[in-house]
Amino acid sequence: MTADSPRTRPVILGQNQYGKADNRVVRITRDGDTHHIKDLNVSVALSGDMEDVHYSGSNAHVLPTDTTKNTVYAFAKKHGIESAEQFGIHLARHFVTSQEPIEVARIRIEEYSWERIATSDASARFIGADEVEHSFVRRGQETRTAQITYDGEKWQIISGLKDLVVMNSTHSEFWGYVKDEYTTLEEAHDRILATEVSARWRFNWTDDETRMPNWEKSYEQTRKHMLQAFAETYSLSLQQTLYQMGSRVINHRGEIDEIRFSLPNKHHFLVDLEPFGLQNDNEVYFAADRPYGLIEATVLRDGTTPRIPVDMTNL
Amino acid sequence: MTADSPRTRPVILGQNQYGKADNRVVRITRDGDTHHIKDLNVSVALSGDMEDVHYSGSNAHVLPTDTTKNTVYAFAKKHGIESAEQFGIHLARHFVTSQEPIEVARIRIEEYSWERIATSDASARFIGADEVEHSFVRRGQETRTAQITYDGEKWQIISGLKDLVVMNSTHSEFWGYVKDEYTTLEEAHDRILATEVSARWRFNWTDDETRMPNWEKSYEQTRKHMLQAFAETYSLSLQQTLYQMGSRVINHRGEIDEIRFSLPNKHHFLVDLEPFGLQNDNEVYFAADRPYGLIEATVLRDGTTPRIPVDMTNL
Amino acid sequence: MTADSPRTRPVILGQNQYGKADNRVVRITRDGDTHHIKDLNVSVALSGDMEDVHYSGSNAHVLPTDTTKNTVYAFAKKHGIESAEQFGIHLARHFVTSQEPIEVARIRIEEYSWERIATSDASARFIGADEVEHSFVRRGQETRTAQITYDGEKWQIISGLKDLVVMNSTHSEFWGYVKDEYTTLEEAHDRILATEVSARWRFNWTDDETRMPNWEKSYEQTRKHMLQAFAETYSLSLQQTLYQMGSRVINHRGEIDEIRFSLPNKHHFLVDLEPFGLQNDNEVYFAADRPYGLIEATVLRDGTTPRIPVDMTNL
Amino acid sequence: MTADSPRTRPVILGQNQYGKADNRVVRITRDGDTHHIKDLNVSVALSGDMEDVHYSGSNAHVLPTDTTKNTVYAFAKKHGIESAEQFGIHLARHFVTSQEPIEVARIRIEEYSWERIATSDASARFIGADEVEHSFVRRGQETRTAQITYDGEKWQIISGLKDLVVMNSTHSEFWGYVKDEYTTLEEAHDRILATEVSARWRFNWTDDETRMPNWEKSYEQTRKHMLQAFAETYSLSLQQTLYQMGSRVINHRGEIDEIRFSLPNKHHFLVDLEPFGLQNDNEVYFAADRPYGLIEATVLRDGTTPRIPVDMTNL
Repeated sequence: MTADSPRTRPVILGQNQYGKADNRVVRITRDGDTHHIKDLNVSVALSGDMEDVHYSGSNAHVLPTDTTKNTVYAFAKKHGIESAEQFGIHLARHFVTSQEPIEVARIRIEEYSWERIATSDASARFIGADEVEHSFVRRGQETRTAQITYDGEKWQIISGLKDLVVMNSTHSEFWGYVKDEYTTLEEAHDRILATEVSARWRFNWTDDETRMPNWEKSYEQTRKHMLQAFAETYSLSLQQTLYQMGSRVINHRGEIDEIRFSLPNKHHFLVDLEPFGLQNDNEVYFAADRPYGLIEATVLRDGTTPRIPVDMTNL
Repeated sequence: MTADSPRTRPVILGQNQYGKADNRVVRITRDGDTHHIKDLNVSVALSGDMEDVHYSGSNAHVLPTDTTKNTVYAFAKKHGIESAEQFGIHLARHFVTSQEPIEVARIRIEEYSWERIATSDASARFIGADEVEHSFVRRGQETRTAQITYDGEKWQIISGLKDLVVMNSTHSEFWGYVKDEYTTLEEAHDRILATEVSARWRFNWTDDETRMPNWEKSYEQTRKHMLQAFAETYSLSLQQTLYQMGSRVINHRGEIDEIRFSLPNKHHFLVDLEPFGLQNDNEVYFAADRPYGLIEATVLRDGTTPRIPVDMTNL
Repeated sequence: MTADSPRTRPVILGQNQYGKADNRVVRITRDGDTHHIKDLNVSVALSGDMEDVHYSGSNAHVLPTDTTKNTVYAFAKKHGIESAEQFGIHLARHFVTSQEPIEVARIRIEEYSWERIATSDASARFIGADEVEHSFVRRGQETRTAQITYDGEKWQIISGLKDLVVMNSTHSEFWGYVKDEYTTLEEAHDRILATEVSARWRFNWTDDETRMPNWEKSYEQTRKHMLQAFAETYSLSLQQTLYQMGSRVINHRGEIDEIRFSLPNKHHFLVDLEPFGLQNDNEVYFAADRPYGLIEATVLRDGTTPRIPVDMTNL
Repeated sequence: MTADSPRTRPVILGQNQYGKADNRVVRITRDGDTHHIKDLNVSVALSGDMEDVHYSGSNAHVLPTDTTKNTVYAFAKKHGIESAEQFGIHLARHFVTSQEPIEVARIRIEEYSWERIATSDASARFIGADEVEHSFVRRGQETRTAQITYDGEKWQIISGLKDLVVMNSTHSEFWGYVKDEYTTLEEAHDRILATEVSARWRFNWTDDETRMPNWEKSYEQTRKHMLQAFAETYSLSLQQTLYQMGSRVINHRGEIDEIRFSLPNKHHFLVDLEPFGLQNDNEVYFAADRPYGLIEATVLRDGTTPRIPVDMTNL
């Protein structure tokens, strides 16, 4: 490299970001003998005036990723963790406002939820009912996600969930599709519909001047509406179910303008038992792994601009 | 290889087994409009008079692994799936009694549990309350396991669970240990104790002539006793907690003679916040992945012989 | 849904795509007794005029995902697999040109490479040297990737690799960075630099009328330039190394206009052995998993427009 | 628990072990400017007089798992890492001889191998050919394993490998098997045979007084014999191939008495292309994941006693 200025280089730097990923922080809050847990995985990505570190290796604008890690733990103490979104807002604001070269901060958070272990009556009598409020079992169902982006003026909050596996054992059909020379699939008038929901939804809150949503309540309600729409839709295609799940959320949650789903069709194939003299009346299924159908779409409030990236899955 | 008979070979065949692994079977049972799910992953391992297939490639004694797969699906129809253990008993008995060369059958099963999606009142009115009883969400907490072994005379049933993550946020200490030249750990008088429970327990039922345990009830009770013992033990070491969990099960469940645990110590390290002028009063923890302590032990009823293999983890 | 036109709906459909993911196809080509393998994982995503299937469940425009799977296997026979890119071009062209409603097809491919098992001289003499050319061992190093997108007029080809783990055991420093109130990291003047390379690069070939690159040769050369730039850069920051890797590729490969990297900093921490009376002269390291630094950037030919999406990693 | 002595307890402790798992140690050795890497994952399991810590929580006999971790890193400096086996021998001897309560130490090691990055001629001229000998790429093929067990008198060394994926694209048949009422499989006279080799082999070296094997050379040769036997066997069943792989090792490596394999049959199903008017002449295969056949067996030198545990796979 003998070129001495970016202007004359034949090769230039494009979008770039850096930070510390997968900071696992557990925050215990003690309310007398009753403890509460927040269990997060926090990833920080910062971007801004970073040409020098790429072109010459000068770190004069680089806050070390190790420092961003320290900040996560320090803020868990200073601000507590009211919700993943609120915690991310504290972090993003700090990086953008305290570091001149940082123009945008994006915080991604995964949250794992816990429930209390129900203890026996005998134990409650023996050691005191309130003393056992420090024992937890991880729920292990979906993983909650949040992405908080701040550019010094506006906020973009995209919350979501993944790993939520659902199944309807009936009320699903698939027929009337295009048939070309490579089509061998038989039409189905009663099939299992199962998927592992990945969803991300964008809030229309963007401005410190306006009232923030109640992040915890919004999550619980959004999750509920998705599950209920999945359960209550008589499905002619997974696309139809997806749209029902999305429109239910947009219609019920005024704070959300856009939602994007990535729904693998977890195929459950009816096993052919006729060779064994048995009839399979929608009773015995082979749960297949790969390949799988993959249905992805954005559902949004009319008049708003979609901003959730199309690709939620890795290459 | 010019040797022409096993007797004169310098190399011989030892223990061997074969079968189809990871047969994913979902069984739907329809009770009117209310559906029930059993969702299993079934692995078959057969052994017996199998020298020829190893020495010469003759398959005359070999029931194809594909056939064992078919049998799993056919039996899901013929016998239903009352419990993982009962289903494994049907399969193991079949292979040993129907195939002359098969001397021992071992069936391993993983079970994934599902719960119903709670639907809205509105929906219940609209499509009929009983029509939504076909929608499920996977619980995603522990995976239940069962291993059924039959040699034509006696049964060995080892049930278990894995992936159950639990945490006590206090009531755990660790001190008074050996200190050698490589010891730097500081004693702890109030720490987080967290683990991911893997457990396997052996039933004393071995004989068709005696009454079988209620497998479903036994599982629920065993799981409950382990969780409660974990929650209620004031722990001076993870070994002590392990022993309390095991003895609670043996003392309460007469049908179980032996239980073995593999308990990783999921370390939660208190973060040093002093460099930032903050005090960490058991509030902020770093949840570490690797390395981790690993505590393994068998707890058994006095007078019985341990039979659960020592190594539950892969090399 | 009684609303009768998208225009009056309060909720609308945004970007959507569907297809079959993870079609695992192995293609054997026999050149006499010498066999050749191509081992791919192919995912199809189609988009176009798909409103009806989302709004009403009508599948009249939907080519089943099962058909897209069949097409992958049929094309492996009809066209062979010359390269991942060429195979994807056949598939994408087919879907867009044969199905009226399909406007864009995007094919993603992972490729696993194999090498021949070296056989002994004795064996070569016994069964004939040319007869053992059907035995392979999977290389297991990086996974090659390709993404082929076609809209009926223009092509976009983004190739890449992932899982390629590299390490420099010296010639890496990190100092001169910003220090704020949360900074505790000490400067390093001789450290290990290790990363797992994920890279995607975009070709400037877009048009059937112009000559296609030699995809196989281009891949080998691009991989070589990245590895050599990694090895030969005396690094003051991982960002600098990233930029060197990218500019080396752009400078040497005229067919590539843009490359984006996602480089986790796989930390190797020098272990403090002083408590044991030992000096650690850059000899013994703890290889950490989480958290990790994550450095991401695009490097591109000046005057071209970046098109590779910023987020290569899943939320 | 009011029982005051183990003798009168209705519940007792069985086999138990503890230690630190997954200690990731990287050791760099500098030979001038040429560096060498050893990259290990070391797990320690100790057992002995450990009743008190289970019954009462007394840690008076417990060397902390944290100390076993420190010892791994300190020994990487003190003794270097000549081979995984030799390193494990140093560790196991230390724990058993230095700690009165420890009766048996078992060290498990995974080893990841690296190769040098080939650098360009230009670079070699510029920065000096010997200065680039610090750049590595991880091979990524098999993982090498070693298990070292010491009881204060005798050694048991079980080495092995896993994750080694191999394929023969012909010279494999499967026919002449048992057909029962659940058999639908068609006989195959030319099929793909592919597996992911997991193997463990036991050395007959047990005694400090006798000469130790050359662990590095033994590994390379054993791996070579397995691969060549796989490639050169015309296979009538995977069991036959397994036996040939095992007997080849036992016959050629006098230091090894026993080897056990776990070989999943990675099914490659010929795709039926007839519906598309195409003939599939053993060219296009679907590579399936689950279910899979699983073939496991021990092969041993006649007159020796098998000691490798039957179950190499987790429940």
